[in-house]
Amino acid sequence: MNTFGNVLRLTTFGESHGSHIGGVLDGFPAGLLLDVDFLKNEMQRRKPGQSALTTERNEDDEVQIISGLFEGRTTGTPLAFIIKNKDANSGDYDALKNVYRPSHADFTYTEKYGIRDHRGGGRSSARETAVRVAAGALCKLFLQQKGIHIAGYVSQVGPIVCPLPYTELSLSEAEQSPVRCPHAETAREMEAYISQIKSEGDTIGGTITAVIQGLPVGLGAPVYGKFHAALASAMLGINACKGFDYGSGFDSLHRKGSELNDAFTTVNQSTVTKTNHSGGIQGGITNGNDVYFRVAFKPVATIKREQQSVTPEGEKTTFTAQGRHDPCVLPRAVPIVEAMAALVTLDHWLLAQTVIKHSEA
Amino acid sequence: MNTFGNVLRLTTFGESHGSHIGGVLDGFPAGLLLDVDFLKNEMQRRKPGQSALTTERNEDDEVQIISGLFEGRTTGTPLAFIIKNKDANSGDYDALKNVYRPSHADFTYTEKYGIRDHRGGGRSSARETAVRVAAGALCKLFLQQKGIHIAGYVSQVGPIVCPLPYTELSLSEAEQSPVRCPHAETAREMEAYISQIKSEGDTIGGTITAVIQGLPVGLGAPVYGKFHAALASAMLGINACKGFDYGSGFDSLHRKGSELNDAFTTVNQSTVTKTNHSGGIQGGITNGNDVYFRVAFKPVATIKREQQSVTPEGEKTTFTAQGRHDPCVLPRAVPIVEAMAALVTLDHWLLAQTVIKHSEA
Amino acid sequence: MNTFGNVLRLTTFGESHGSHIGGVLDGFPAGLLLDVDFLKNEMQRRKPGQSALTTERNEDDEVQIISGLFEGRTTGTPLAFIIKNKDANSGDYDALKNVYRPSHADFTYTEKYGIRDHRGGGRSSARETAVRVAAGALCKLFLQQKGIHIAGYVSQVGPIVCPLPYTELSLSEAEQSPVRCPHAETAREMEAYISQIKSEGDTIGGTITAVIQGLPVGLGAPVYGKFHAALASAMLGINACKGFDYGSGFDSLHRKGSELNDAFTTVNQSTVTKTNHSGGIQGGITNGNDVYFRVAFKPVATIKREQQSVTPEGEKTTFTAQGRHDPCVLPRAVPIVEAMAALVTLDHWLLAQTVIKHSEA
Amino acid sequence: MNTFGNVLRLTTFGESHGSHIGGVLDGFPAGLLLDVDFLKNEMQRRKPGQSALTTERNEDDEVQIISGLFEGRTTGTPLAFIIKNKDANSGDYDALKNVYRPSHADFTYTEKYGIRDHRGGGRSSARETAVRVAAGALCKLFLQQKGIHIAGYVSQVGPIVCPLPYTELSLSEAEQSPVRCPHAETAREMEAYISQIKSEGDTIGGTITAVIQGLPVGLGAPVYGKFHAALASAMLGINACKGFDYGSGFDSLHRKGSELNDAFTTVNQSTVTKTNHSGGIQGGITNGNDVYFRVAFKPVATIKREQQSVTPEGEKTTFTAQGRHDPCVLPRAVPIVEAMAALVTLDHWLLAQTVIKHSEA
Repeated sequence: MNTFGNVLRLTTFGESHGSHIGGVLDGFPAGLLLDVDFLKNEMQRRKPGQSALTTERNEDDEVQIISGLFEGRTTGTPLAFIIKNKDANSGDYDALKNVYRPSHADFTYTEKYGIRDHRGGGRSSARETAVRVAAGALCKLFLQQKGIHIAGYVSQVGPIVCPLPYTELSLSEAEQSPVRCPHAETAREMEAYISQIKSEGDTIGGTITAVIQGLPVGLGAPVYGKFHAALASAMLGINACKGFDYGSGFDSLHRKGSELNDAFTTVNQSTVTKTNHSGGIQGGITNGNDVYFRVAFKPVATIKREQQSVTPEGEKTTFTAQGRHDPCVLPRAVPIVEAMAALVTLDHWLLAQTVIKHSEA
Repeated sequence: MNTFGNVLRLTTFGESHGSHIGGVLDGFPAGLLLDVDFLKNEMQRRKPGQSALTTERNEDDEVQIISGLFEGRTTGTPLAFIIKNKDANSGDYDALKNVYRPSHADFTYTEKYGIRDHRGGGRSSARETAVRVAAGALCKLFLQQKGIHIAGYVSQVGPIVCPLPYTELSLSEAEQSPVRCPHAETAREMEAYISQIKSEGDTIGGTITAVIQGLPVGLGAPVYGKFHAALASAMLGINACKGFDYGSGFDSLHRKGSELNDAFTTVNQSTVTKTNHSGGIQGGITNGNDVYFRVAFKPVATIKREQQSVTPEGEKTTFTAQGRHDPCVLPRAVPIVEAMAALVTLDHWLLAQTVIKHSEA
Repeated sequence: MNTFGNVLRLTTFGESHGSHIGGVLDGFPAGLLLDVDFLKNEMQRRKPGQSALTTERNEDDEVQIISGLFEGRTTGTPLAFIIKNKDANSGDYDALKNVYRPSHADFTYTEKYGIRDHRGGGRSSARETAVRVAAGALCKLFLQQKGIHIAGYVSQVGPIVCPLPYTELSLSEAEQSPVRCPHAETAREMEAYISQIKSEGDTIGGTITAVIQGLPVGLGAPVYGKFHAALASAMLGINACKGFDYGSGFDSLHRKGSELNDAFTTVNQSTVTKTNHSGGIQGGITNGNDVYFRVAFKPVATIKREQQSVTPEGEKTTFTAQGRHDPCVLPRAVPIVEAMAALVTLDHWLLAQTVIKHSEA
Repeated sequence: MNTFGNVLRLTTFGESHGSHIGGVLDGFPAGLLLDVDFLKNEMQRRKPGQSALTTERNEDDEVQIISGLFEGRTTGTPLAFIIKNKDANSGDYDALKNVYRPSHADFTYTEKYGIRDHRGGGRSSARETAVRVAAGALCKLFLQQKGIHIAGYVSQVGPIVCPLPYTELSLSEAEQSPVRCPHAETAREMEAYISQIKSEGDTIGGTITAVIQGLPVGLGAPVYGKFHAALASAMLGINACKGFDYGSGFDSLHRKGSELNDAFTTVNQSTVTKTNHSGGIQGGITNGNDVYFRVAFKPVATIKREQQSVTPEGEKTTFTAQGRHDPCVLPRAVPIVEAMAALVTLDHWLLAQTVIKHSEA
C-alpha cells in the first residue's frame, strides 16, 4: 500500500529518522531532460525551516537520483531517488517510546503491526511527503511541455478565508508570501494569525485550493476511474488531510440545478461551457476547463501543551511535545498538493493513451 | 476502470437502457448464507419510484445471482449477478441523440470514445449504482456477522441542515421518512423543500452523513492505503458527488489543535480516546472508534427547464429534458453511500488479514 | 483472482453446472464493428461435441452480449456477455459429492473454501474457457485490423510429434483435421491414436504450438512486464496446462550461444535478424519477428477406469467416472490458447501506448 | 512494470552501470528478526566471480537496508535496500554505444524508448537479479519459520542431464559443486563441459529444477490466480529464461491419464496422494505435496566471437564482445530461481489469509 498510481506508479519508502527516505517512479516518459534547478526549487518549497512559520528542523532535502537517468535524460526505466535524513534529532523522540501521542498514528501502528519505529513518527511522519514532491516535480516538468500547469495556494487558515475565487487571483503571487496566499491582505492576516497560534503553543488548519489548467478533454474514466475520485484519493492520502471537494463542492449546496448547470456554447467552433461549476469534469472525464478543488487540513496534532494520554502498556500518563513542528502545515502542504495532483494528472494522461476511439479503431 | 477494490473487487457493467446491468464480486468470503430478503430490501431502498420525491421510472430491480452460490451459500468463487432493465423508455431519449445535456457526461464520453450510447446516459447513468447496492448488501451481511454496522442518512438538503450530530440521533429512524433524515422535524422541512423544488422543475443537492460502527483497530494502511482515502475514492466515484470529508472535516477548520486532538485514556484496560474528532482513523488506520464522514452531492443536472446547449455537430441549440428524474438524489443515494462504504470496509478487513504482526511472525 | 490483464482486463464467472457462465471485458477499444459470424465460429471451434474425438456434452455456446455494444459497435465501456449452460447433466455428478476425483481440484477447493460446488467441477471446470474464447475473439478482430494474426495448432499428441517447424507448415490447414494439426499425415496418426486411447477409456496429452505474426517492435516491458512472462502466465492459467516455452525453448538446450544467437542485418533499411531463435522477443520486448511458443497439456484427469480415492469425510473409496469427457483436450484447446494469446497481445499493445519515447517527450 | 506481486510487492530499480541497484519490498510481515548472515550468504551464492565458471566482474553485493527495519526487526512498512555498483568497467562497453549486440535487448529498448543506457546493458542486465535475491532471502527467512523450504539445483547443462529425479537426490549437496548439481558425477561432467565451452569463447544453457517443500494446502486461486501460473510468470521474468514446466511437464507427454493421475489415499487420517505427477498443485491450488518445477535457460548471448550486427544508425557492422560474462548462467541462476519462488510463495501465503472459509464465515 506504499504505491500510488496505475500506469505511472510512485512507490515510496523511509521513516522520519531512518537513514534515508526515497521513492521509485515507474512508467515515466523517456527522453525528458531533467531540469535540476526546478527540482531543487520544488524541494525548497516543501522544506522545513524555510520561514518563521515552519518547523526548525533543518534538512537539505537534496534528491539523489540513482537510476533511470542517462546523460541527463529519463530513459523510461524506473527513476529511483533517495534523500538523506540529516537533522534527525531522535533524542527529542526518546520520550515517545513510552507514550501514544494524541491524534497521531502511534497507537494504530502499534496495534496493527505489533511494533513501531517511534522516532519522529517513523513511517507515519509527513517527512515521507518530500518524496512525493520530488516525484511530482518530474511530472510537472513533463506536463508543462504538454501545456498543463498546476498551481495551489492557501485559501483558508482557521477562520481566515481568502475572499476571492481563484479566477480573480494571480496565482503566481502565492509564492511571494510565507503563507502562500496570493491575496496580499489575506496573506498578512493569515501570517499574523499563525504567529499568534504558534506563540500559544497551538496549531491551526485550513484549506488549500489548487487548479489544473490546460488539460485536454478526455482524462479520467467512467464509474471507478473518475478523474476527481483519483484526486480525492490522492489528497486524502496526505497527512492531516480531512476533506476534499471540487467544482461547486460543499459551499454551493444551497444552490439549485438551474443555477449550477454549465450551459454549452461554441467559441471558435469549439464546444465549451459558459460557466465551470462542474470543476472541469463531467461524468468523471475532463471537459477541457480548469479542474479546481479544495483540500482541508486539520491542525497539526503536535502541540506544545500538556495532553492526557496512555502508555503502550496501558497506563495513563501525560504528554507534552518537545520536537520541532509546524504551527500550521498549510504553507508547506501547497507543493505536496500540487505534486499529488501532478501524479494523478500524468497517470491519467498516460492512461488516456490506452483508450482507442471509434475513429481510430 | 470499471473495477473497484483490492482483494475484494467489484466489476460492474451495463448501460441505462441496455438489456441488463450487473456485476461480478470477486474475493468474497465463502460460506455466507444469503439472506434474500435483506438483499431485496436494500434494492428497494435505492429503487426508483419509491415515493413522490423520486423519479417515476419503474424497475423491479430484481437481482439474479448467476454464479458463486451453491445451496444458498457463497462458495468463494465470483458472485455474478444481473438486473434486467424493464422500464427503459428509450423513446424519451431520442432527442438526446442530437444534443449534449448541460452538466451531463454526453460531451465528455463522445469526445473520449468517439461514440456514445445516448439512451438514458448509457454507461454514465446512475442506474449503474443499483449494482453497487446489490454488492454492498452482500458485504453488509458478512460485516454484520463480525459486528460491523454501516448506516447513512440525509444530513442536508439545499440550505436545510440537520441540527444535531449523528451521535445525538437515532439513525434507524432515517428509514421512517421519505427523505431518510432521522430528525423528524428536519425531515419534514426537507420533504417540503424538495416538493417545492420539484414543482419548479428544478433540482437540489445536499449531504449524506454515514457512520461505520464496530470496526476493529487496524483497518487501513500507511501512506497510500489510508482507510479514509479509500472511502473518499469510493464516494467521489458516485454520480453527482462533489465532496467528502471525515471526522472534523471542513466544518471545524476554525478550531485549534488543542480543541481537536483526541486525548487517550483507558476504559476497562482498553486504550480509547475521550473524543472522536479524528473520525475513527489515525494515520490512515482505524482506531476502534466510529468512522463517520460526509458526502456532498450536487443537484441532479436534469432539470425541466430550457437550457442552452450544443449539438454533437457543434451547432448551438436549446434543450428541455423530458425523461423521468429525481428532484433530489439524496434519499436514494443513502443506500449507495452505505454500499460503497461496505465494499471499502470488507476489502480492508480482508486486506488486514494479510498483515502479519510482530507477535505472529 | 478471476481477472486477467492490465489495461485490458477480462473478469470471468460461472460454474460448469450453474445457470450461466460469462465475463466482462474492460478497456476494450471503442468503435469496433462486431463480426458476429467470426465470434460464432470461434465458439464453434472450442465447443464440445464437434467431433468423435471430443466430449458429447452438447452446448450451443451462444454468446449474449449484454453491455458495451451500441448499434453493433463497441463503445469503450465494459463488454459483458453471458452463455447459458444448457446440457448440464448434473445427475451424472451426484456421485461426485462423496468422492475426490484423482488429479482434479475437488480436494483443494474443498480445503481452501470449506465448501464446493461438486457438480461438474464447479468453477474449476474447463467450461470457464468458453468465456475466454469469446473475449479472445473480440481481441482477434481488433488485432486483425492492426495486421496482427494469431494461429495455433496441435504439434504433439502423446508420442506423436509433428515433424516440421511452424515455418514449414501452412497453419490454416490445421482447421481441416479434427485434431487441428496442419500436417496431414501426422494429423491422421494423431486421430487414430486418440481413438485408440478413447477406446481404452484413457486420456492423453500433448502440445500446442502458437504463432503471433505482424507484431510491432516494442510490446512488453523490462523486468516483470516481459511479453513472454505474460504469455506464460496466460497459458499456465489454462486447465491441464503443465508447461510453456518459447523460441529455442526446452528443445534446444544442447545448442550453444554461437548457434542460437540471432545476428542482426538490414533489409530495405530496416534492422532485422537473420534467424529467430529468440522467438521474436529480446529483453522481454517484441522485436518485430514472429512470436512462437509451445504449451504442454497433461492428459485429462477423468478416465473411465476405476481409481482409488477418498471421500470428503476421509474414508477410502474407489471412483469410476461417468460424465462426458474428452480423451484428448488438445484439439479443443487450440482456440483457448489463441484466445489467451490475443488477450495478452492486445493488453500489451494498449500498454505500449502509455510509453512515451524520447522523440515524443 | 518493475513491480512483482499482489499483496507482497517487490519494486526494483537500477542499471548495470548506474550508481546503485535496489528494491522496495512492500507488504512484508512485521517482527521478523533479520538474519544478516543468511542474507549475505544468499548474495554470495549469486555473486559474480565466485568460481572459474563465472564472470570475473567483482562486486561485494553488500545490501544496505535503508527503511523498514527497527532494532533489527521488520516493522511492516516498506523494506528498501540499495546495492552499490563498484566494479562497473563502463569502458568495456563504450563500443556498445554503436552496435546492437545479437540476442540482447539493445535494439528493442532503443526502439521502445528512443534512448538507452548502453553501459553494460543498462536496465536489461541480469545485474538487476541481485535485488531479487536480497528480497527472496527475506522471504525465505519468514517461510522457514512456517516450515516452508525452497531448494533449487542445476539439472541440465547443454546435453548433460542429471539422471535422477529430485526425490532421489540430496538437494543440500548442490552447494558443494561450483555448478550446483547435487549429483556428484554429473556435476563433474557439467563442470568440465562448461570449461570447454568457455575455452571456445562460447556459452551454453540448461535447466534448473526447484522444489518447494512444506507448503500448506490452499495456496493459489482458481482461474487466473493459479499458483503455477504465478511461478511461470516469475520464472519467465528472469533474464535468459525460455521455458517452464511443473509436475509431469514436457517430459511425460507420452504417458496416459491412467499413468499420471495421482490416486488419493489416507495416511494418519490425512488425505494424501500416492504419487505426485501433479507437482503439488490441483486446479491451481497447492495440495500439500512438494511443488516442483523446471526452468529452461538459453545460452548467454554474449560470446567471444565475431558476430554480424547493425549499428543504431542502420549500418551493417560486426561485433566481438569484450566484457566479462558467464559461459553458463545456470549455477548463478539457482539462487535467483529460488528467490522468485520465495516471492511467489510468500505472496500467495499472504493472499491465502484473505480467503475466508465456510467454517469461518
